[in-house]
Amino acid sequence: MTFRAPVRDLAFALKTVGHPQLLASAFPDLDEATVQAVLEAAGAFADNELAPLNRKGDLEGARYANGAVTAAPGFADAYRAFVEQGWNSLSAPPEHGGQGLSKAMELAVFEMVHAANMAFGLCPMLTQGAIEALTLHGTERQKALVLPKLVSGEWTGAMCLTEPQAGSDLAALTSIARPDGKGGWLLSGQKIFITWGDHDAADNICHLIIARTPDAPPGVKGISLFLANKFQVKDDGSLGPRNSFRPASIEHKLGIHGSPTCVMVYEDAEAELVGELGQGLAHMFVMMNAARLQVGVQGVAIAERAFQQALTFSQERVQGRAAWGGDGLYGHPDVRRTLMLSKAKIEAARGICLTTGVLADVAHRAETPEERAAAKARQELLTPIAKAWSTDIGVEVASAGVQVHGGMGFIEETGAAQHYRDARIAPIYEGTNGIQAIDLIGRKVRSNGGETLRALCAEIAGSADALADNAGLAPVGNRLAAGVAALERATDWLLAADNAAALAAATPFLKLAGDVVGGWILGRQALAAAGSDDPWLQSKRALARVYASQVLALTPGLADAIAETDANDLESTPAAALAG
Amino acid sequence: MTFRAPVRDLAFALKTVGHPQLLASAFPDLDEATVQAVLEAAGAFADNELAPLNRKGDLEGARYANGAVTAAPGFADAYRAFVEQGWNSLSAPPEHGGQGLSKAMELAVFEMVHAANMAFGLCPMLTQGAIEALTLHGTERQKALVLPKLVSGEWTGAMCLTEPQAGSDLAALTSIARPDGKGGWLLSGQKIFITWGDHDAADNICHLIIARTPDAPPGVKGISLFLANKFQVKDDGSLGPRNSFRPASIEHKLGIHGSPTCVMVYEDAEAELVGELGQGLAHMFVMMNAARLQVGVQGVAIAERAFQQALTFSQERVQGRAAWGGDGLYGHPDVRRTLMLSKAKIEAARGICLTTGVLADVAHRAETPEERAAAKARQELLTPIAKAWSTDIGVEVASAGVQVHGGMGFIEETGAAQHYRDARIAPIYEGTNGIQAIDLIGRKVRSNGGETLRALCAEIAGSADALADNAGLAPVGNRLAAGVAALERATDWLLAADNAAALAAATPFLKLAGDVVGGWILGRQALAAAGSDDPWLQSKRALARVYASQVLALTPGLADAIAETDANDLESTPAAALAG
Repeated sequence: MTFRAPVRDLAFALKTVGHPQLLASAFPDLDEATVQAVLEAAGAFADNELAPLNRKGDLEGARYANGAVTAAPGFADAYRAFVEQGWNSLSAPPEHGGQGLSKAMELAVFEMVHAANMAFGLCPMLTQGAIEALTLHGTERQKALVLPKLVSGEWTGAMCLTEPQAGSDLAALTSIARPDGKGGWLLSGQKIFITWGDHDAADNICHLIIARTPDAPPGVKGISLFLANKFQVKDDGSLGPRNSFRPASIEHKLGIHGSPTCVMVYEDAEAELVGELGQGLAHMFVMMNAARLQVGVQGVAIAERAFQQALTFSQERVQGRAAWGGDGLYGHPDVRRTLMLSKAKIEAARGICLTTGVLADVAHRAETPEERAAAKARQELLTPIAKAWSTDIGVEVASAGVQVHGGMGFIEETGAAQHYRDARIAPIYEGTNGIQAIDLIGRKVRSNGGETLRALCAEIAGSADALADNAGLAPVGNRLAAGVAALERATDWLLAADNAAALAAATPFLKLAGDVVGGWILGRQALAAAGSDDPWLQSKRALARVYASQVLALTPGLADAIAETDANDLESTPAAALAG
Repeated sequence: MTFRAPVRDLAFALKTVGHPQLLASAFPDLDEATVQAVLEAAGAFADNELAPLNRKGDLEGARYANGAVTAAPGFADAYRAFVEQGWNSLSAPPEHGGQGLSKAMELAVFEMVHAANMAFGLCPMLTQGAIEALTLHGTERQKALVLPKLVSGEWTGAMCLTEPQAGSDLAALTSIARPDGKGGWLLSGQKIFITWGDHDAADNICHLIIARTPDAPPGVKGISLFLANKFQVKDDGSLGPRNSFRPASIEHKLGIHGSPTCVMVYEDAEAELVGELGQGLAHMFVMMNAARLQVGVQGVAIAERAFQQALTFSQERVQGRAAWGGDGLYGHPDVRRTLMLSKAKIEAARGICLTTGVLADVAHRAETPEERAAAKARQELLTPIAKAWSTDIGVEVASAGVQVHGGMGFIEETGAAQHYRDARIAPIYEGTNGIQAIDLIGRKVRSNGGETLRALCAEIAGSADALADNAGLAPVGNRLAAGVAALERATDWLLAADNAAALAAATPFLKLAGDVVGGWILGRQALAAAGSDDPWLQSKRALARVYASQVLALTPGLADAIAETDANDLESTPAAALAG
């Protein structure tokens, strides 16, 4: 169950998704050597401090007693070390105490953190979302007194959206904030599924909460964003009295036991407005989009963790005479195919997430408004793909990891089962993957006539041409070209489809888009690896070919499946008829 | 978490896979009304006695203490009721106390048992395997004294194959049986993963154990099959002293907590030879093949259970305005697509398993040797597909069930997570799905030049023609025809491939075969449902169309993926290069 952070793969992935060019244009003080040093140091921290706590966190978990949550054994100390070494503040702006590194680098570091200990990683991950929201929408007081503490990690952030009746449909929420007559607000209500909503690892916890206000219009326009701190913050920045909210319980979950998932009760909690009244959901989406990309990274991370464990086991476990001998299970073609396909999908998902991270940086920092707008549009297009496709890969690879272990994989002590359990949350939270697919087809494709996606397809087609011309990669180029054609055909269908049919095809459409973009990532990695005898670089070319033959080959059929979606058959089937 | 046994679906599935014809030719005393009555009574037992224990079994599980296992709370009483009502003896021969029903009916009944409580179902399932082995290979004494007790269920059976170093590779086992000088044997060794190897729900437990004998040749030819009973059996059939074997511990597993998975230690246990010396693996395969089909049924069962729970939740949970309104989540096209595709795959897998069961009956009972041989060949062809394809569906549908629940699915109290955990064992035990795929391509396809598979393909092509001529089912017929063509193309490739490439393509080949055979099942269900306005029968036609467009549409691409398998890329990639 040893974990070794994939520093070499991450550095290579960053290089192939345009990170060096990003540094040259927007981060003049940051050079390749620094990037490498940061990745190595983060990897060492993940390996040595976080990974060893992962199983303990699973077994013992966070605890709730007497209205307070205690973090899982060792987690609070690890969190303090994490903060002291500066890992919480990588991409935050220097004016708020951050290190001003690229978003893409932060994602690379967080991938290692999540892989080492997914339950732990959620705590700083949610703080990042709070940092983004306050950076964009916080008041001067919030920026002066709260933001720096979140950046340093002395305090942590929590995102408080879901209520029992309001999950995917946040418009149904009923928490309410009333003016306190002194310019502040008194917030009351119950929130559920609040990740790290309470714990003992930091001095304060800053809750970003969406709630209604009195006399506000119904629906989303009546929702505003509020900040309520566990301990109130005095004007000099020191901590005041305890605010009137508390955890009522924590959930007993399938996985990520080390992450406390709280039911939170607010009873006239003192709260401050963040941003504009009635803009709560819009402001919260800033946090959510950052979190969605981070959850995609979690999908990559848990897949990497599960893959490493399966790969190690496949070398140690000997069963029967292998076709490729001498290497235990790894010598069996069926096992090796499973492992290489897993690895290829991990690299593809990693590249999609890091590409989205680079685009976030470009959208923020490019010189011209045109460049920024183009990057932002593509970032928004790729975010639901990064989230949903990567987290589906997380579940798939974790399941394959159990399978490679055979019977041992089903025994909890082996550790493979924990990854399978942990991985399952990522397709659900921060917007289920179904919600991501609907976001993709609606707001990201149909809303602009497919323009952003078509521009991406044209670029992928160019890479396919380059691959077709490269010795040894022609099959990848041909399969990628066919994949792009399939995606374009599906896009044509999607733009012409009625609303219900489009919604019914949303999930396969997202999968198709992810499969093709993933192939593009691997194709460019293969091109970047050309001309070397290094086995690791050679493997990048082999992975692209395996992915092309085993994943891209199915994309024309997937486009057919989308185009043949029959909404009538779905619509006309009552639930009772399916009940058997 | 209420479960309702799918009696109507099962009866319909039996009808469409030739069960009535089987009854007419081989079970003259058994009529449709009796079949229906048996299914309904079994369904009621599953609903009322077994399903309510499922969660308790998960939470509290079986217990090990002081060298003995105690079944999970309520399980021993439920087992006694199961036996008293005669559910243990459905297909056993009447001369040994069985009811002489068809294998297919037994499978249908066991599907309901496994769906209600998969951990419970394993106990009688393993007894069935022991019954088959002793029926075929037992001595007269074993048939007289042990077999009737297994048939009645007063005693249970256990299959004892795996050792720590010998899992998929049973040839590596080291347990040894020495002659005791009195015509018997003394067996010593350690076995692991022994399902229901010890418990307190029955008076005796009959272990069928493979072990080596002194001076036997190395490898599989040195392995023989033995019977060792927990309590020795006297010549009058009464119980004698406790035998010298015991459970050393039970495993802490991901799921099926109600099923004790034992480490068993044998120390000069008194054992009897079963069948011929040196034929242990061959004899054991009789049990294993029956068990493989039963595990396939478990895949169907856990999928059915998870599907039912998700379907119910989707009607109760309201989130946002649904495109098809009024029905909660079920009105959302993406959710409905998930549910209908799940249901279609369940029906397909159910039909594959029941078809294999009918073939087992025909292979056993048909009049002519030619009919019996043809049925046996097809039964053997379909067994690895029934096992692997259905259990993969089990995991997939259980995972989709969690997803439909959203955040609630990740909370253990909801129950969806248990199905996701329980389902994960089925692709592993009784031969991993990778082993099934290798069995399929090797012993079932390449060994006879693809003859058995081609005969099946020809029959499926005939059904495709019939579908193409039926109003409303032409798309199904066309997609099924393309699927058969894809399977035939992949078969051509497989027969021409070198050994390593064939092994590397084994898993996708099995998936392709399952996808196509599943489409055949659903197509015939759709034909059988023609001409009725009944919504449930209409849904069968809709399910076939959904499956054709969403699963069969991908089969040509899957055949491409198989044909493009590049064993060189796999063979040339060292594990170290994948380690990042």
